[in-house]
Amino acid sequence: MSTPELGLPMAVAAPELPARVRIYEVGARDGLQNEKATVPTEVKAEFVRRLADSGLTTIEATSFVHPKWVPQLADAEQLFPLVSDLGRSSGVHLPVLVPNERGLDRALALGARHVALFASATESFAKANLNRTVDESLAMFEPVVSRAKAGKVHVRSYISMCFGDPWEGPVPIHQVVRVCKALMDMGCDELSLGDTIGVATPGHVQTLLAELNEEGVPTSALGVHFHDTYGQALANTLAALQHGVTTVDASAGGLGGCPYAKSATGNLATEDLVWMLQGLGIDTGVDLARLTATSVWMAERLGRPSPSRTVKALSHKE
Amino acid sequence: MSTPELGLPMAVAAPELPARVRIYEVGARDGLQNEKATVPTEVKAEFVRRLADSGLTTIEATSFVHPKWVPQLADAEQLFPLVSDLGRSSGVHLPVLVPNERGLDRALALGARHVALFASATESFAKANLNRTVDESLAMFEPVVSRAKAGKVHVRSYISMCFGDPWEGPVPIHQVVRVCKALMDMGCDELSLGDTIGVATPGHVQTLLAELNEEGVPTSALGVHFHDTYGQALANTLAALQHGVTTVDASAGGLGGCPYAKSATGNLATEDLVWMLQGLGIDTGVDLARLTATSVWMAERLGRPSPSRTVKALSHKE
Repeated sequence: MSTPELGLPMAVAAPELPARVRIYEVGARDGLQNEKATVPTEVKAEFVRRLADSGLTTIEATSFVHPKWVPQLADAEQLFPLVSDLGRSSGVHLPVLVPNERGLDRALALGARHVALFASATESFAKANLNRTVDESLAMFEPVVSRAKAGKVHVRSYISMCFGDPWEGPVPIHQVVRVCKALMDMGCDELSLGDTIGVATPGHVQTLLAELNEEGVPTSALGVHFHDTYGQALANTLAALQHGVTTVDASAGGLGGCPYAKSATGNLATEDLVWMLQGLGIDTGVDLARLTATSVWMAERLGRPSPSRTVKALSHKE
Repeated sequence: MSTPELGLPMAVAAPELPARVRIYEVGARDGLQNEKATVPTEVKAEFVRRLADSGLTTIEATSFVHPKWVPQLADAEQLFPLVSDLGRSSGVHLPVLVPNERGLDRALALGARHVALFASATESFAKANLNRTVDESLAMFEPVVSRAKAGKVHVRSYISMCFGDPWEGPVPIHQVVRVCKALMDMGCDELSLGDTIGVATPGHVQTLLAELNEEGVPTSALGVHFHDTYGQALANTLAALQHGVTTVDASAGGLGGCPYAKSATGNLATEDLVWMLQGLGIDTGVDLARLTATSVWMAERLGRPSPSRTVKALSHKE
């Protein structure tokens, strides 16, 4: 039996969706930071290059967190110079995570032009991840944002646990809105709403987005970051697109996950997202075959198959 | 670290979605027919009972296809009497697949009140699966439908390959509409639109539904049957719900799949669907914890873990 390669879905547009979506690729940072294996710096650099070659234009490269907390990314100083030419030569944005002023100093010293903070919507996660209250962590971010903005550096902030929290259960929407507003008031350019444990559903997503708009945070400043723990990530993404969101976080091959979630399944896979967007006729600039090949290549380096359904389907040998 | 069981998503309704969805459970038939292992008849009967106990009200029980073609369901005559009391005692519907008049005879002899046909939208799959052209297979179904309807038996028809076909690529919408209309004109009560190889995306789904309405097939007669080969099943389901669809096929634990698809991932998992519907505040009558326990129990019998993300997350041991 012959089964010709389909490779791409038939494109049929749906009403009231954005014409273009920016994929914010987190595999090299959020993905690799949760890997047990230590990935050689050269392999990470090659991964970032291949992601850029597949058409991704925003690739979070690494994290300037203290190596004690994230040993997998302890080579940030060595890695960043290996890829930073991508920013100059092909206009790719290479944001890096900075947890505090010390992290910002390290990032700025290497010429980073885009940084990302990591805030929490809940007290429990702020305590677990940052050993601070939510307000203490916001106070810690304030000089980071003001110094970055003074240097014309673009600032994103992640907000973790926007929908549910493993200690606190469902997270009240007003609590998420308060943290988002504080970060916008501080001068952040962009927020990424994280469903860190993957419990969100589409109505919850649209309601949070509407409440944020109501409180003055425009959709244009909002990205979404869904985890697939309960298989909801792509449906939630569709709901966000229908609300007008045009920035979607995803991880090539579905790399990574949240160590606090009750399952190994983690980030929305970039390939599954691209399949849907391509099918909807939404432009992303990504070459799906090339991206899939990159994830297969990385999976071979990590010694385990990609959890992405699209990668599995497209790389399946008869 | 303590991670209290969340167990259920926070319910936040979304506008313009149905208040109630009927889940058409296909695990016992579509799921098990693709299993390599032969499952004992008693285990199948216990599976159907447990599915009913978890609140599912439509459970496709087995298939009266020739045992040569689907040896896994060769025990249909033995199985059906073991579960048919569920229909009488608790109002659960127990449809069975009938490929032709011979299958219908066998089903009627055992008192089946709901039958399902298996049509194809493409010539290639009609040839591969039924060894007939599409028109020849429709002609074969005609006496099955008329005799079933004369006996006041409810008739559903699956239509396979409604979006893409492994031999033909993307399937033109008018071709699907023609087959659907023919089946409705024949007297079918209900159609199930199958994305047998999992390539559909949300705009394609909504466009097909709209075209069917345009040609006189009401949404109330339409169910959707998505496969998760490219991770799109739940997003496509959301799109169908937004169009007004209230019947969704799913397979407990994500059992089964299509042997022609280029990957092992198959049916939309009932648990992942229930998580989304519960989160949207849509009534299904299903107890998610009980259903998950049923899928874990069945996975133990099959000797491999459930591919459902929700089953994995809810059954994960710390």
